[in-house]
Amino acid sequence: MVLKTTNQNRTVEVIVQNKPLARDPEGETIHRNLILKGGYDQVTGVRAGKLLRMTVHAESSKEAENIVRRLCDDLRIYNPAAHSCEVRVVEEEDRITE
Amino acid sequence: MVLKTTNQNRTVEVIVQNKPLARDPEGETIHRNLILKGGYDQVTGVRAGKLLRMTVHAESSKEAENIVRRLCDDLRIYNPAAHSCEVRVVEEEDRITE
Repeated sequence: MVLKTTNQNRTVEVIVQNKPLARDPEGETIHRNLILKGGYDQVTGVRAGKLLRMTVHAESSKEAENIVRRLCDDLRIYNPAAHSCEVRVVEEEDRITE
Repeated sequence: MVLKTTNQNRTVEVIVQNKPLARDPEGETIHRNLILKGGYDQVTGVRAGKLLRMTVHAESSKEAENIVRRLCDDLRIYNPAAHSCEVRVVEEEDRITE
């Protein structure tokens, strides 16, 4: 594939979590044994997940999002029976500059 | 601590990644052995990380963010020598409704 010079690198985040109705033992343990024992009872729940931050060469944000959605399904980045998979493009103004 | 009834549950995301200048073997392996082998050469880089999505009872987004930043340092949710830790409040309009 020849990449056009008008393309830009865009950052796309993929978040894989257990489905909302499924239990999440990792998040429950962090909540109960670390956060509540540490005295932070303002925190009423924790869900754990995996983040993949991909740099994608694409003509538009929409195209970058579509490429990543397709590869997540195609390459079995997540298990659709057990996990939810969110894909979101990080817009320029959201980026952390430090 | 007594929780006031004017408080609201707010969603705060914590993202722990290896520091930007450190290598990330997990992300490199996913990129090289899964994504590039799968033919998605528009993806030019992958960084892996851990996501904790916390529900926090707080009077404002800023207060929720401050509570979570404090507990991440206090309870060693990440290792400051090796990891970066981003904390961000998910605003209502960002929430996925499905």
